[in-house]
Amino acid sequence: MKLDHEKLQEYGKFLLTIKLFPYFDIAHYILMCLVVREDIHLYQTSIPNFHKRHPLACYMSSMLLCFGGPMVTHFLLGEPILDDFKTHQNLLIASVVWYLVFFSPFDLFYKVVKFLPVKMVLSACKELQRTRKIYDGVLHGLHLYPNSYVIIVAAGAMKGAGASFLTIIERFNRGLFLPNTGEFLHPSFATKGSILAAVLFTLERSKLIEVHKNLLFLCVAGFMMYVKLMSLFLKSFDPFIPFENLTAAVFFGGIMDALRRAKKSSKASTAPADDKKVTDVDSKKTN
Amino acid sequence: MKLDHEKLQEYGKFLLTIKLFPYFDIAHYILMCLVVREDIHLYQTSIPNFHKRHPLACYMSSMLLCFGGPMVTHFLLGEPILDDFKTHQNLLIASVVWYLVFFSPFDLFYKVVKFLPVKMVLSACKELQRTRKIYDGVLHGLHLYPNSYVIIVAAGAMKGAGASFLTIIERFNRGLFLPNTGEFLHPSFATKGSILAAVLFTLERSKLIEVHKNLLFLCVAGFMMYVKLMSLFLKSFDPFIPFENLTAAVFFGGIMDALRRAKKSSKASTAPADDKKVTDVDSKKTN
Amino acid sequence: MKLDHEKLQEYGKFLLTIKLFPYFDIAHYILMCLVVREDIHLYQTSIPNFHKRHPLACYMSSMLLCFGGPMVTHFLLGEPILDDFKTHQNLLIASVVWYLVFFSPFDLFYKVVKFLPVKMVLSACKELQRTRKIYDGVLHGLHLYPNSYVIIVAAGAMKGAGASFLTIIERFNRGLFLPNTGEFLHPSFATKGSILAAVLFTLERSKLIEVHKNLLFLCVAGFMMYVKLMSLFLKSFDPFIPFENLTAAVFFGGIMDALRRAKKSSKASTAPADDKKVTDVDSKKTN
Repeated sequence: MKLDHEKLQEYGKFLLTIKLFPYFDIAHYILMCLVVREDIHLYQTSIPNFHKRHPLACYMSSMLLCFGGPMVTHFLLGEPILDDFKTHQNLLIASVVWYLVFFSPFDLFYKVVKFLPVKMVLSACKELQRTRKIYDGVLHGLHLYPNSYVIIVAAGAMKGAGASFLTIIERFNRGLFLPNTGEFLHPSFATKGSILAAVLFTLERSKLIEVHKNLLFLCVAGFMMYVKLMSLFLKSFDPFIPFENLTAAVFFGGIMDALRRAKKSSKASTAPADDKKVTDVDSKKTN
Repeated sequence: MKLDHEKLQEYGKFLLTIKLFPYFDIAHYILMCLVVREDIHLYQTSIPNFHKRHPLACYMSSMLLCFGGPMVTHFLLGEPILDDFKTHQNLLIASVVWYLVFFSPFDLFYKVVKFLPVKMVLSACKELQRTRKIYDGVLHGLHLYPNSYVIIVAAGAMKGAGASFLTIIERFNRGLFLPNTGEFLHPSFATKGSILAAVLFTLERSKLIEVHKNLLFLCVAGFMMYVKLMSLFLKSFDPFIPFENLTAAVFFGGIMDALRRAKKSSKASTAPADDKKVTDVDSKKTN
Repeated sequence: MKLDHEKLQEYGKFLLTIKLFPYFDIAHYILMCLVVREDIHLYQTSIPNFHKRHPLACYMSSMLLCFGGPMVTHFLLGEPILDDFKTHQNLLIASVVWYLVFFSPFDLFYKVVKFLPVKMVLSACKELQRTRKIYDGVLHGLHLYPNSYVIIVAAGAMKGAGASFLTIIERFNRGLFLPNTGEFLHPSFATKGSILAAVLFTLERSKLIEVHKNLLFLCVAGFMMYVKLMSLFLKSFDPFIPFENLTAAVFFGGIMDALRRAKKSSKASTAPADDKKVTDVDSKKTN
């Protein structure tokens, strides 16, 4: 048993120190360009060959998602938001990836990366890269504001999931405006998971929970990968939903509403039919 | 008479040095959460129980308004916009207030703070807090740019009224998009009052008007409170409107328009009826 | 021939060192205020006398365009975005220009600056000022990030053409929201020219192309002026379009599409009429 624990720590250390630069970053860029391409397919069918007519808008949208997380963090921490373009390698690679995703001959690259086993590997890589970005963001936040947990968590979570908050700008850049799509209104798993991961890393780094950082990293990265892979098979797989429902029931009036409805319906059962109808409509609405 | 003057200065000094931290800030947070809650009631009736379905969006919107003023100032001055979350007390208190406003049992808290005398006290406290924020913003601007009056006034005014400029983001965050609601298009009294207060404080601090800072603070805070309290009783009470109309008449062509209309109508009185109608429609439009 | 070369260098040096402050800046402010005024005429006819009813929104919109380029650069480089208001002269002059453009007696000023020869002179001055701003932006970027060409180009290009990216905010400020008008979606010549100019200046400053800075400046400024003046006569004059079409054909699948269409239509000529119709529609769509 002791051995297993050590082995897990070693796996964690491996994931925490493995060089991300070319391969894991590429996986991230591929999936982000895919997001843009599929968003165009979904919402901008009225303009055929959108990516051929507006390659610049397409390119800028893709780059915004590729580098969005760190940019949002820089913005929140008052740093130059272009800071990550100091070196050219990442931008160059992302540009090549963008070109391949949108304009490869016979759409070969697109078809390959859409092939499920390939997409699974890419998604796993991307989630590892995300977890590392969150970890780096937490370290960066700790460095700047050692005791400000809120800022540390925000820096970590936004570095991991900031891109989803830029979707509105990215879409607007492509001439698409969808209100009612704020990230806080319908938070994706990536956002919620990033926030949780940032909280856990912050707690560990501040010695508020006692767990080895390697082990924690392994668990968080494993969890992120697991959920991502599951969501490739099952539509809208989100392990947070039961907890959210519980929270809603306990803190946000769910139980009170249920009690009120129960009381109303018990009254209604002795009341005339008209009242009952209203109650029914009411209970449907509150569900 | 001398005594009275000293007494007023003392009152001003009291207002200028009283510790705002728990109580006055709480008043501000309560009123900001009320703004969000009432905006939901007004525009998002199509989603019943919005705050129970989207507590996160609701929370973020409320926090944005609670801390919006300083965030806008930080943004304009190139400082980290999360800077005010360095300590956790304020965020914690604002979160508790948010919870109470939206989810207190039997909506008791909401009903209490909506009760007019309570709301009057809260509004008075909030206006004092606003005036202090403007004063602090002016001092902060002076510290960074000692001779740049435009920046100093902007720093002060935005610290006091920046939240109203964030309404667009706050609403978008809740899935609501109302164009035609820009703050500069229909400036509220809070914005105009904050700008005036920032100008006065800047003039006093730069020794361009000779008045004691305590006395000036007392006058400005008193004026802000008076207008706020009046606007609770009278819908759209705004003491700036006569001055605006005067400015519009003198500088923005109001007098020229009136003369032109007068000339036209004197012509029209001798002209056939058809012309007159057109003139009438025209004059209605320009009013 | 040698003499001519030296003379050209001297012209370039003259353009590079001439004091821009009052006159060239004024030309820029006049044209920017004209942009706002004409945008109101074009899109906000439903509100007669918009500028008289909402002078504040009008003023803020104009100032945003007048000072937008440097503000965007400051934002991207993490500097205080209000930094250029440290001195008051520019803002004061821009304010006077704004007043004259919108509210001069009998609209005299507006009529004069709309007069084609006057507008030509103003446009030429403005393009020289733009080229200088791009040059300054490149120098500023080089100073901050000596080897980061992407950031240097972005700093230069945004200083020259950042205002066009603010049009969305400027319009929103006036209560107007036009999606589908992103600058990257339909880049104007100003944007594309500024990017090219920033690239050329960056190459020259980094000694990657061997050309004297005076000569390069003269060429770039001359080109910008030439295109601007031509576009006053010809609607939508853009010398980049042939290159864009070439790029689109070579890199963005234009040739592949043409081949595919050719193949399809050669097939269709031997196929029944029904197929042909579909092909026609298809080829129209892809054009």
